Amino acid sequence: MTTKGRVTLPIEVGIDDQVRELMERLGADAVRNSDGTELPELVHELSAKVYSTYFPARGDQEWAVANPDTVTNLFLQSARKPALENELTIDVMEGYLTEQIEPDTNVDLDKYWEVHDRTTGTRLETEDWELVDGTNVRIKNAVKGHVYTVNFLARQIWDATQMYNYITNNWDDDPTRDKERPYNVVLPKVWKRVTEQLGKWLDEHDEVDVVRFTTFFYHFTLVFNTHRKEKFVDWFGYSASVSVTALEQFAEEYGYRLTPEDFIDEGYYNSYFRQPSKQFRDWIAFQHKFVTSRVRELTDAVHEAGKEAMMFLGDNWIGVEPYGPHFKDAGLDAVVGSVGNAATCRLIADIPHVKYTEGRFLPYFFPDVFNEDGDPVGEANSSWLTARRAIVRSPLDRIGYGGYLSLAVQFPEFVDRIEEICQEFRDIYDAAEGKHPQVASPRVGIVNAWGKLRTWQTHMVAHALPYEQVEAYVGVIEALAGQGFDVQFISFDEILEGALDNLDVLINVGEAGTAFSGGDVWLNPDLQVAVREFVANGGGMIGVGEPCAVSANGAFNQLSDVFGIDQEQSWSLSTDRYPNLVDEHFILGENGELDVKLKGGSRFWVPVSDDVSILKMNGTSVELASSEYGKGRAIYIAGLPYSQDNNRLLERAIFWASSKEAEYENSVHCEDPRIEVATYDSGAVFVYNSSFDQVEATVRNTADGDKEIKLGPLGSVWL
Amino acid sequence: MTTKGRVTLPIEVGIDDQVRELMERLGADAVRNSDGTELPELVHELSAKVYSTYFPARGDQEWAVANPDTVTNLFLQSARKPALENELTIDVMEGYLTEQIEPDTNVDLDKYWEVHDRTTGTRLETEDWELVDGTNVRIKNAVKGHVYTVNFLARQIWDATQMYNYITNNWDDDPTRDKERPYNVVLPKVWKRVTEQLGKWLDEHDEVDVVRFTTFFYHFTLVFNTHRKEKFVDWFGYSASVSVTALEQFAEEYGYRLTPEDFIDEGYYNSYFRQPSKQFRDWIAFQHKFVTSRVRELTDAVHEAGKEAMMFLGDNWIGVEPYGPHFKDAGLDAVVGSVGNAATCRLIADIPHVKYTEGRFLPYFFPDVFNEDGDPVGEANSSWLTARRAIVRSPLDRIGYGGYLSLAVQFPEFVDRIEEICQEFRDIYDAAEGKHPQVASPRVGIVNAWGKLRTWQTHMVAHALPYEQVEAYVGVIEALAGQGFDVQFISFDEILEGALDNLDVLINVGEAGTAFSGGDVWLNPDLQVAVREFVANGGGMIGVGEPCAVSANGAFNQLSDVFGIDQEQSWSLSTDRYPNLVDEHFILGENGELDVKLKGGSRFWVPVSDDVSILKMNGTSVELASSEYGKGRAIYIAGLPYSQDNNRLLERAIFWASSKEAEYENSVHCEDPRIEVATYDSGAVFVYNSSFDQVEATVRNTADGDKEIKLGPLGSVWL
Repeated sequence: MTTKGRVTLPIEVGIDDQVRELMERLGADAVRNSDGTELPELVHELSAKVYSTYFPARGDQEWAVANPDTVTNLFLQSARKPALENELTIDVMEGYLTEQIEPDTNVDLDKYWEVHDRTTGTRLETEDWELVDGTNVRIKNAVKGHVYTVNFLARQIWDATQMYNYITNNWDDDPTRDKERPYNVVLPKVWKRVTEQLGKWLDEHDEVDVVRFTTFFYHFTLVFNTHRKEKFVDWFGYSASVSVTALEQFAEEYGYRLTPEDFIDEGYYNSYFRQPSKQFRDWIAFQHKFVTSRVRELTDAVHEAGKEAMMFLGDNWIGVEPYGPHFKDAGLDAVVGSVGNAATCRLIADIPHVKYTEGRFLPYFFPDVFNEDGDPVGEANSSWLTARRAIVRSPLDRIGYGGYLSLAVQFPEFVDRIEEICQEFRDIYDAAEGKHPQVASPRVGIVNAWGKLRTWQTHMVAHALPYEQVEAYVGVIEALAGQGFDVQFISFDEILEGALDNLDVLINVGEAGTAFSGGDVWLNPDLQVAVREFVANGGGMIGVGEPCAVSANGAFNQLSDVFGIDQEQSWSLSTDRYPNLVDEHFILGENGELDVKLKGGSRFWVPVSDDVSILKMNGTSVELASSEYGKGRAIYIAGLPYSQDNNRLLERAIFWASSKEAEYENSVHCEDPRIEVATYDSGAVFVYNSSFDQVEATVRNTADGDKEIKLGPLGSVWL
Repeated sequence: MTTKGRVTLPIEVGIDDQVRELMERLGADAVRNSDGTELPELVHELSAKVYSTYFPARGDQEWAVANPDTVTNLFLQSARKPALENELTIDVMEGYLTEQIEPDTNVDLDKYWEVHDRTTGTRLETEDWELVDGTNVRIKNAVKGHVYTVNFLARQIWDATQMYNYITNNWDDDPTRDKERPYNVVLPKVWKRVTEQLGKWLDEHDEVDVVRFTTFFYHFTLVFNTHRKEKFVDWFGYSASVSVTALEQFAEEYGYRLTPEDFIDEGYYNSYFRQPSKQFRDWIAFQHKFVTSRVRELTDAVHEAGKEAMMFLGDNWIGVEPYGPHFKDAGLDAVVGSVGNAATCRLIADIPHVKYTEGRFLPYFFPDVFNEDGDPVGEANSSWLTARRAIVRSPLDRIGYGGYLSLAVQFPEFVDRIEEICQEFRDIYDAAEGKHPQVASPRVGIVNAWGKLRTWQTHMVAHALPYEQVEAYVGVIEALAGQGFDVQFISFDEILEGALDNLDVLINVGEAGTAFSGGDVWLNPDLQVAVREFVANGGGMIGVGEPCAVSANGAFNQLSDVFGIDQEQSWSLSTDRYPNLVDEHFILGENGELDVKLKGGSRFWVPVSDDVSILKMNGTSVELASSEYGKGRAIYIAGLPYSQDNNRLLERAIFWASSKEAEYENSVHCEDPRIEVATYDSGAVFVYNSSFDQVEATVRNTADGDKEIKLGPLGSVWL
């Protein structure tokens, strides 16, 4: 049993003895600093790889302050304001934090500021409004009773992550802390400075083995309000990647100009829940290519210095796009990212074109958890419970923690627990030799507007934080992240190009009108034909939430004939429904013992065929239904918040939809949904309790036949 | 105390003694027969008005059978069928009851049958399909993977109400019962026969005082399925009023042809939840004019014979439209209708241009309730509880019952109870002398696409039957039907014409995309401006469910600035929400004691302003919010299923929204939401318990100051 390795520990100055002890206990073979801490002298004597954070876009504050023209930009929208008189003045900064942003008035207002009448949906001519001072826009002939907004270019005068850390850790009273300003590498003088500084830094830091870029150039969108609280957060937001320079370069390269409204998007800021516009897709492609090419210059320098280049998947990660077409050109050796659940764990573990991946586990050693009222042990357990499901299927190469070790060591029970977790991680990794366990034969595709680019990244708002509005959908991704299927993320366009040929089950999950359900794309007859033929020829279709949903031609679910159900728009209440209720079904488990809770996102779903089997209803609304269609099968699920029972339902649904129930029945498996099983080519079988319960159950079809097991909370055993 | 009058009893042959006893006990001053019963000889000696049912469009079955070309028509849609091969044959009758309908193939198929590709939304050319026998349509070059439907003209060979009665009462084994066929008065030979027969009948029925037309010419849409169960029911449906003759007359009068699809409407059959099309509105107008003009010919004949003409508001009521512009020309003396709740009671009581109105109370004396397992007393109580609320505000002139008296007399407790109810009705009527009690000053308007035409008739599918999908909305109408406000039903068009000038509070209630919420009409800037100015100038706006809802220009609620809230489309999840939670508010009652349950129809509602007060939330979704806007106020309610507490919430919301809280505080009222109060000009105050609880409470501001009262279930007292 290996008791050392694959673990990275954050260390800091002034606690050398504790660092030594912790490294020994956790078996850490790498150390790192954090945002706001320095590596201690001690690193020179530790037999460990040394990571050092490196901030290419905000690490050089003296220079940043001396060059205020280099800050990054944002497009922002003012509050929506009704004109109750014929004149209206809008303070664009209302609601925004002046410490973080300021209006950028030193630009061509005609191009970079706009005023919209949001009642008529029209842009005002520039002569119809004026900037009366640095922040107030006066609309000259406002129409009484119309609503107006201002789109404006803003300067980001406080780096978003440093602002977050600063406020979270109460650095206001710390005289050593300044507010850090981001600078924009698209400006030639910035890039020159950045590359020079990295060269210098590499020369000076012989002790560093791994340059942990935190991160690159453009932050995901994070805007605070006047109360210093989060106002807007979009992990996938590109709003903070704009600048006059980049927009001009884009216009040259793509042959058309992007307008402020292309970014403001009626105030939705191109949320990736929106149907992506051509303009937004083009901007992502433009920035992805630019950012990865610049990253390559940095990684080349790192490699020349004999070090490794690691990217932290967070903060300024915009444009890098680990699943994008240019990522392979970035020259990165490794990616490390925060693991919030199984899906984020797979997101990191499955990143291609790197030598290794590392998961930074929760909780962060920050005072928001490490305090008298916090529960660091509980958070560590929850994190491990969810992450282990993913690690079994697609192992990370390393794990680690972040934050301030001096805080963590004040919680000895926490240290005990993470010692165990580190060892269990090594055991899984070693036993499987880092390989995936056997994969079941149904090939599963998740289809949405984003496809591969958002592999394991659907329905996320802030990184892995829970949102009640999406729990019914994100549970599907979370479940799949720990199941033994080959999962592909495909786009609607790829279906038109034949992607269904390589799938056994297609899943469409999400709310109507979003990029995940698909919205208007379902009006394309070719898409409908492709999916109907796929199912009719034996494929499986699973819809969760509001699949294939856009109201047209007498249906809301455009594949209502395939699913046998449709959503009631209140337009067909006159049609009587006689649900064909069915109690027993393969997908409900043996004797229907699964305790599924299928929270629907909304509205009423009704049978539109006598043939569809209705397995669960909530009042008059269908929650679970199965149908046969030609040689294939379809299943509708109203919503699938993650739970062990719901997880198992989905797993069985995939086998059933692809007509492969027998494969499941013959596999090594456990009927108890809390117990999961992974089988390796070596013959080894890993059985693990993905719950906090004490469980006694039977594992079927092992080499020794059925086998009784007994596992404590989170327990596991190798057969 | 009057102990006789204002009550109508159904009587029948063979139970003369019981008829005499019941008439005495109930104080009945009128008798009637029912569908399938004859008036007994006894009527000649009773000192009572005699009503006789009269069936102008199905009463003459011998002639009907001899003239099979006179049956009425329906436009129907076949099932939606996918083409899984390049040929597709659709049996149009699949799912329909052959006893009720048959395809009408003896017409110009080119005009009266259509095939649609429901994947592309296109109508096929006639040469692309053929009728291969009387019921199967073969589509020649079907596109694999597309869905098709057939629109076809059908003949109604069984009258819908008689079919319902026949099946409900198991008349299959009764050799005296034939299936009755409806005939269509638009045909000249039918009309000639109908008028001749009425003349003859009037001559022969001297004993009859009131001709109770049951009803006129066209049945609301009611279609049964192959299992002899209801397949489609639309109380407001005009589908069964079509015929080649009428369609040709329409084309001549309106200058354009209606197509089958104008009626089929993608399979939604112009449900009045749909945004009404111009074509459908025109058809209603055309039939309303035609039907009322023909009714006038019948009522003239009745009056000439010295009798009264009463209409039963049900069965073949289509086209009469009691709130339509031509109703006054129909010459009716009275309307009688079934009372299912307060709203249906007001619907009947408020009908203009008649001498008196009568409510037929539930339960019907039919075997579906009058059996060992039934609860006729409970149903009578529920009916009286809800109806009394309406009767207090706008008294019916008479009440009555329907069905078979021979059944009812077998349930003596039921007879005891309706004896009490009849007397309480007379007491209320007499004490108030048939006048309305005092009306509160806030003038309330409900706005939807239908306006006055659907007065008290919104969100109904089958007459007063409960539908889970609309309970959140219909509760508003039910509440208002028993409150002391002047309520107007106005259309969106009327707002543009200045209707808000006569209102203090505007209510928009319903689900997005329906005629009740309004859908696309809210994209009209003029409508938005009118409502914004109304509120800004001091008006009140109440939105229930999904008000003003259509996604455009960065909002879903197009008056999100007025309400301060909007629906989350999953496009603005990145925007943080900080609900301004408020515990106490006038609308929540004294000390917030109202126990409101505001079932939302769907989805998440979020604050979009810091100023809006959030009074109730369900998880992260707003259920109740109030805001101030200019000089006016707005309230959002997620849903208002009827309950005493919700009723009171709405009442208080109307006072608050119109800034008239003081008026409520100073009125005679009771804080307990179960107790309602009506004040009359005479100084009389009626206090009634609208619950099944024993209640002790205080009535405020009576002539003698605050007064303690104690009322049993459904109890009442005059102060």
